[in-house]
Amino acid sequence: MRLDQIAALAQGSDTKVLLIVLDGLGGLPRESDGMTELEAADTPNLDELARGGTCGLHHPVALGITPGSGPGHLALFGYDPLVYETGRGVLEALGIEFPLESQDIAVRANFCTLDSEGCISDRRAGRISTEAAAPLSEMLDEIRIEGAECFVRHLKEHRFVLVLRPDAATGAEVGDTDPGRTGVAPLIVRPRNEHSETTARLLDTWLKVARERLADQSGANMALLRGVSGLPDWPRFDHVFGMRAVAVAADPMYRGVGRLLGMDAVTVSDGVENLVSEYRRTFKAFDFSFLHFKAPDKAGEDGDFDRKVAVIEEVDEIIPQLVDMGPAVTLVTGDHSTPSMLKSHSWHPVPFLIHGGSARMDDTTRFGETACRNGVHGLIRGCELMRLAAARAGRLAKFGA
Amino acid sequence: MRLDQIAALAQGSDTKVLLIVLDGLGGLPRESDGMTELEAADTPNLDELARGGTCGLHHPVALGITPGSGPGHLALFGYDPLVYETGRGVLEALGIEFPLESQDIAVRANFCTLDSEGCISDRRAGRISTEAAAPLSEMLDEIRIEGAECFVRHLKEHRFVLVLRPDAATGAEVGDTDPGRTGVAPLIVRPRNEHSETTARLLDTWLKVARERLADQSGANMALLRGVSGLPDWPRFDHVFGMRAVAVAADPMYRGVGRLLGMDAVTVSDGVENLVSEYRRTFKAFDFSFLHFKAPDKAGEDGDFDRKVAVIEEVDEIIPQLVDMGPAVTLVTGDHSTPSMLKSHSWHPVPFLIHGGSARMDDTTRFGETACRNGVHGLIRGCELMRLAAARAGRLAKFGA
Repeated sequence: MRLDQIAALAQGSDTKVLLIVLDGLGGLPRESDGMTELEAADTPNLDELARGGTCGLHHPVALGITPGSGPGHLALFGYDPLVYETGRGVLEALGIEFPLESQDIAVRANFCTLDSEGCISDRRAGRISTEAAAPLSEMLDEIRIEGAECFVRHLKEHRFVLVLRPDAATGAEVGDTDPGRTGVAPLIVRPRNEHSETTARLLDTWLKVARERLADQSGANMALLRGVSGLPDWPRFDHVFGMRAVAVAADPMYRGVGRLLGMDAVTVSDGVENLVSEYRRTFKAFDFSFLHFKAPDKAGEDGDFDRKVAVIEEVDEIIPQLVDMGPAVTLVTGDHSTPSMLKSHSWHPVPFLIHGGSARMDDTTRFGETACRNGVHGLIRGCELMRLAAARAGRLAKFGA
Repeated sequence: MRLDQIAALAQGSDTKVLLIVLDGLGGLPRESDGMTELEAADTPNLDELARGGTCGLHHPVALGITPGSGPGHLALFGYDPLVYETGRGVLEALGIEFPLESQDIAVRANFCTLDSEGCISDRRAGRISTEAAAPLSEMLDEIRIEGAECFVRHLKEHRFVLVLRPDAATGAEVGDTDPGRTGVAPLIVRPRNEHSETTARLLDTWLKVARERLADQSGANMALLRGVSGLPDWPRFDHVFGMRAVAVAADPMYRGVGRLLGMDAVTVSDGVENLVSEYRRTFKAFDFSFLHFKAPDKAGEDGDFDRKVAVIEEVDEIIPQLVDMGPAVTLVTGDHSTPSMLKSHSWHPVPFLIHGGSARMDDTTRFGETACRNGVHGLIRGCELMRLAAARAGRLAKFGA
């Protein structure tokens, strides 16, 4: 279903929708007893919601596809990530909460090493340390060129973000300069259409200056550009679902994805209790609240089954305080699976529960992967969840007469 | 998910994927005990794989749609048959393993009978026998026209394939000459776009000569053309999934579909043991091996429940020899159902099992339609299977940051 088709059905209501995301929630069974992290966790409050609500599994992108955090969250917000693909430059800029403006062009950049012939000898400048590279980024941030403001923000090790703010709107359809291999010169900046020629020229100018400035530095003597992209022109979340929305997260990346869709964003400190107080504070002002809990994903990436169990239990403890605020519909799920046995994001479907609103109940008495597989919703696409939540909150009118 | 989106994620690995196709595998329950052919078969080895793997059902084209062999296999190779439609002419040519070249135009053709007015009195020339029609096809194969080489290959009864190899590339967007009814003249060859005008002219010339040559023959005095088509310009399988692939089959049709996607093709004699030795011989050289077993479909088409049971059991016996070769992921399924009670292909979903790679297990202990319905994968589209197999073999990178 297209977003404009949903937007045509969105209707006003005083019902509120709460989306609780446990990042990387889905897991895989441990050998000892065949339980996943979520199943091993003692979660009386989530189980209670599962009992009073309905359950299922979703795949955020597509069956068999491992989602990145950006696509995973877009799906939860109702945007099909296969249709709404974001440029990597923009995602990196969002990840550090760079305040992108509508005409900005964002680029992922790497420090690299060129040999005396101008050929790339190391695409990552020997994975130069953050300590050594951050001052180089600061130096590049001082570059001024004609036709655009330029910003450089250091990320980690050899990576940084370059943002161009051109004097007039230009396209972002520009190829990478990273050839993906060593022993050759960096590619020239090549525009893919006429509208992007200015962007290519600006980036080319910037690169020339950067090369001059880096020439006498140690550690790296050039930069490679990838994922040149502009802010996408997507329908705003509030226009699609007719709900004023807020993203509450400690991590900038997740606030960034919310902002990309026109949501308000609220920064919180780590710790589950901070999300409770922010939800309480903002409850009245918004129709849709997205609360992001990063800890399960981190524990999964670290391969720490027990810690993932523990942080899931921490979230469980605050569930009553959230639900007692009175959202009409509460949706609890993850943006992807991060099984601790894999130490990485994975393609495995993600459990979800929806509580509130009219529904045909299932027999689920426990929030977990196996229980959700037998839930009433079966296996659905992640981008369908938001429709389901809006429907149960009475916020979608009849389709057709 | 588009194939270019999958191709962007394909990553190298030394894992191997084995696809075992039991043609027409799916069945319908017999009255005596409610068991399908697969369920009635004694298949200890497939059951073992089901127990250690995960199961589900797939519909190769779409719910309710009976697949032909071409679309059924395209789906198994990950190509949505609703998007990747092949012309019938090309499919017929593949079916007899005609070595099509890139500019070739392939046409399904029928012998027919015209009355003295030039109107069609029989669209199939009284279903003329193969014995009577094959010499006519050989005669037509000798036709030479200006602007293209022409090839005629007899199929069966009134049917043959005509292949044009034009001197220069021309389009295949040309209408049928078969009006679909008797009492009217054959349609003239009508191009649907400018690029196909030469093709229409060439076919028109060929038809004029064919009519002259057939005039004094008995049995048929004209030919009707349908399904004019050229080789499709589709992404190659190895480019999409990053796996060198081989199709091992006794029947030319199935090698043909593999070749259409750029796979290598290996001819084997009938008999399950020949597929084992070919798999052993080619195991190292390929990342993806497709082994095709035709017998279940033939038994189903013949309405022979017991023979279908027996040939499924024959395949079961060699399963250990195949799996012991060491594929990381083994996928066992059919390209469609051929219930012996229907004596034909049918729309019923097809059971599948996937073995190997990380997965949440289901309780399946038996490979069969009913067991697969309760499997962890539920009912999915056939073209999703390949993604699932690639994911489990660790061959798909994360989508987005």
